[in-house]
Parts: sequence; structure tokens; C-alpha cells
Amino acid sequence: MNLLVVGSVALDTIETPFAKASETPGGSALYISISASYFTRSIGLVGVVGDDFPKDVIEDLRSRGIDLKGLQIVDGGKTFRWGGRYHYDMNTRETLFTHLNVFSNFNPTIPSEFKSSKYVCLGNIDPVLQMEVLKQVESPKLVIADTMNFWIERKYGELLETLKHVNVLIVNDAEARQIAMEPNLIKAGKKILKLGPDVVIIKKGEHGAVLIIDGTIFTAPAYPIESIQDPTGAGDSFAGGFAGWIAKTDDISEENLRRAVIYGSTIASFCVEDFGINKIKNLSWDKIQERFMAFRELMRFEVE
Amino acid sequence: MNLLVVGSVALDTIETPFAKASETPGGSALYISISASYFTRSIGLVGVVGDDFPKDVIEDLRSRGIDLKGLQIVDGGKTFRWGGRYHYDMNTRETLFTHLNVFSNFNPTIPSEFKSSKYVCLGNIDPVLQMEVLKQVESPKLVIADTMNFWIERKYGELLETLKHVNVLIVNDAEARQIAMEPNLIKAGKKILKLGPDVVIIKKGEHGAVLIIDGTIFTAPAYPIESIQDPTGAGDSFAGGFAGWIAKTDDISEENLRRAVIYGSTIASFCVEDFGINKIKNLSWDKIQERFMAFRELMRFEVE
Repeated sequence: MNLLVVGSVALDTIETPFAKASETPGGSALYISISASYFTRSIGLVGVVGDDFPKDVIEDLRSRGIDLKGLQIVDGGKTFRWGGRYHYDMNTRETLFTHLNVFSNFNPTIPSEFKSSKYVCLGNIDPVLQMEVLKQVESPKLVIADTMNFWIERKYGELLETLKHVNVLIVNDAEARQIAMEPNLIKAGKKILKLGPDVVIIKKGEHGAVLIIDGTIFTAPAYPIESIQDPTGAGDSFAGGFAGWIAKTDDISEENLRRAVIYGSTIASFCVEDFGINKIKNLSWDKIQERFMAFRELMRFEVE
Repeated sequence: MNLLVVGSVALDTIETPFAKASETPGGSALYISISASYFTRSIGLVGVVGDDFPKDVIEDLRSRGIDLKGLQIVDGGKTFRWGGRYHYDMNTRETLFTHLNVFSNFNPTIPSEFKSSKYVCLGNIDPVLQMEVLKQVESPKLVIADTMNFWIERKYGELLETLKHVNVLIVNDAEARQIAMEPNLIKAGKKILKLGPDVVIIKKGEHGAVLIIDGTIFTAPAYPIESIQDPTGAGDSFAGGFAGWIAKTDDISEENLRRAVIYGSTIASFCVEDFGINKIKNLSWDKIQERFMAFRELMRFEVE
């Protein structure tokens, strides 16, 4: 397998000041794998759902060449449900409910065909489970991982242990500050590099993303969107676009990591243009390339 | 005169969580003209101070080739004083006091030698005074202006009148939203373009700046600074670097406006590294060029 994706698969209920969507398919593994599917057709997904999860979404994943051998479907079980509400500026949200359901007993079992995966992308799940996954894979070329405040607060020691085995950590600005216990973002990024990762990517929402490698910083803007519909999954879409491009090109040079950040930003920018996965499930390579090139125009300046 | 600068000259008392500076030279016209002086030696400054304003600062301005014919020094008068305190994250500040002093009767009189200035940079002063300046100049090639929430709230009608005669408006994100009465920054910028300006530049502090021209958007990051000492004057330094580069090159093409944004960002990045004007008064062309090139590295990515 080229890219192994492990994370949550969920049914989300999302409220924005302008609209509401109930029980729409979501979860980090779903966003990551759909986003990455435009780059590689060799993806293995590991996760869990109940038998209430829509069959057409599962069929859609399969049609993208995503191998679902690792997706446990629990008979009579209920899929993980999350509800959240965005505030007027769309930058802050509150969680309305979290029903773990079948996810509460999730123990990722990596099918033997997936164990030799070259690239691994760990969605935001318990760092203990992330570590369990890494113990089962043989010798991945690159491990990409996400986390969140919930785990930083509750499982800091376990997270630090997992970080030792992560090559690329993708977090948002608040999470980076929290992990490093340092308010300055650049200093925070550099501190995280000392905890294990070779690369840190800090997502700043509408302000873009920063890639920090020892000695190098790359800044990418967010694509200017005049009408954000729903920010849910933007971070996971970023990770999926990033991981997908790396898996497609099999090149982890700094130059290519920069490109991967732009591909991540590209998919994330599509994601927020509609609710849930509605936009990212209907992309095309041409649309992706067009927006990738728009980033060049957005960032371009010439020395005389 | 190549560049006419009109604005406040002040003595600032600045508190950060880490240090304090009392009665340090400041004001928009001071920051703008010092910043621009690295690009052109044909600058005319129009402003007002009391006879308590430090003579050595005035001498320093003169030594930069800044023509002070338009700087009124009021005998027995006291210079404008401002006091402000920054909060822990350095992104928000409160005004502790404002003593207008001689500035309360400021009526900008443009010396006849300045009236044919090619470029005009209007610091943040009453839009009525900005308009008074524009009535006195003959036919500038480009008028650059700043404003602030104080005037947007109190003199909105007058500001709209002034904006009809401004080519480049430089404001921060909150001000752009407030002028346009539109929360989305890109939409706000485009709305402002309909009010008169051909170009809007929105400064986002640590998140960089956005240049909006009809049909084109250019995004520049902020230079990553690990230890911000004092954000005072960063916006004015940006305006000074921007205006200075434009005045130096006498080129208002979109390509050159992009470069000017990076020069503005460059000078602003130096500004925050020390209190008040301490850092920007001691720059060199080599240092400026070195940081300008660092922006290229920060923003660079190649299509395969």
C-alpha cells in the first residue's frame, strides 16, 4: 500500500450562522482519504463505523480505489457522532455533543497487506492508538500525524512518546503553542522539532500555513475565499492533500514538501466552500491544478 | 520633491509585558519618513512639534535628506504625546492617554516647494486634514493614505470623501472590515476599491499583508520574528517602506506594487525588533536587501 490512513469516520451535525447539516459523513480518516484519493489510488483506510453508516459513502470510497479492508463495520453498532456550532466569524466553534459509540472501543488493527505501507497518515485520535498503529507497520518512509487540544491536555506524556516516531506533525497554531508551551509560533515550531518530528506544519486557518524544518521556514497563504460555508474538515483535507502529493511523488525533499503544503492548502480551500465532504468529493485533477497555480500567482513577486 | 509625508510627530510612552519606554520619538510621519529615507533622499515632511521635541532627532532626520521646511516647531508648545500598553500576546493594545497638545491646532500647510511632489503619503490623521493636504498638492502621481478606527467611527462621511482622492489605501484588517462594513476581508477589500482607491493593502500584523487590485490578489507573509519587542509604528514603517520603494523606482505597475509590499513588510519586520524607532533608524541598504531576499525564500515554491 502506498498510503495508510488511520482515523475517525463519523456522522457530523454542523451548525453555522447561515445553515445546518445533520448527520453528514465526516471524521478525519474520511476527509484525509478522500482528499488523498486525487493523488494516489493506493490508499488503505483503517477505522470503524456502525452499520448505520451510509452505504453509498462506502461505495464512493471504494470507487476511488480506497481499500476498505481495514474499515471495521460493527453489526448493530452506531457510528461515532459529533455535533458542533460555528460562531459568526467562522474561526471559532463549540462542540455541542460527542457520542463515541463504536469508536469508544476502536483498536486499530492493520491488515497484513497494509503493514508495508510506504506512507502513513495518522488522523487525530488518541496518541496511544497512533502508537499502536506505528508498532504494526514495518518501516514507513514517512509518518504524518495530527493531534488536538483534547489529547495534549489529557495524554501529554503519551503524545510525547508518539511524537518520537512521527516525521511530520501537522497541527494548528493553538495546538503548536500548547504542545511546546511557548506563545511565539516560530519558537513553538522549533521546540516541537526537538521532540521528534523532522518537520512541523502549523495551520493558521484563514491565515495560511507555516512549514518549519530545521533551518528553513516556508509560509503559504490561505486561498482567499469570499464565502466560507463550513470549516469542518479543512485541517484533515490539508493533511490529505499534503500526504497524497507526497505519496504520489515519493519525494520527501524540502522542495517537494513546499509543494505538498500548497496542495494541502489547495484541497483545504475547496473543503470550506461547501458543507462536510460535499465539495471535496467532487473535485477533478484539473480543478486542483488550476487552484494550485492560483497559489503561485497569489505568492509571486520578482526581484527586479 | 519626490515624496511628501504628512502625519503626526509624537513622544510615545510604551509599555509591553517585558519593558517600558517613556517619551520616545514616534508618530506616523516620523516612522514613515525614516523608513522611506533608505529609498529616496527627496522627502518633505509636514507636521508639528513643540519646542520640547528632541533636537538630535530633528538633526537625524535632516541628515537623512528629509526636508523639514514643513515641520512647524511651536515655541513654548508641547509635542503630541501618546501612551499605550500591549498585552501578553503583543497583538492587542490599549491607549493609556492621548495629549494632543500642539497637534490639536495642526493645520497642514504645504510649503510651495512641496506642492509638486510626485508621491504623497498621508499618515493617519483626521481625513479632513488629509483632504486639506490633497487640495494643496498639484497633481501627484500616487496618493497613499492610512486611517484608523477613531476616524472611521467619528468622521465616516469625511473619510469617504477623502478616499475618492486616494490611490492606495493602507489599513489593518479591523479597519478594512469597519470601512466596508463587511466581515469577509477579501470582500471588504473589494468594496473599498469601489469607494475610490485603485489599490487596497490590508495589514494583518503577524499574519502578513494582502494587496488587492481589481482582479488581482497578492499575499505576503510577515517575516517570522522570534522575539517581538514593540509593535508600535510597524504599520507606519510598512507604509514608509512601501512608499519609499515606489518613490525610488517611480513605477506603479502591479509587479512593482508587489515588490513594494515586500519592502514595506521588510521595514515593518525590523521595526518590531526594538522599541520605537531604535531599530529602523539604524538600518542599511544591505540589511534591507538581505531581508527582502529572505522573503523570497520564505514564499518560494516551484512547480515541478
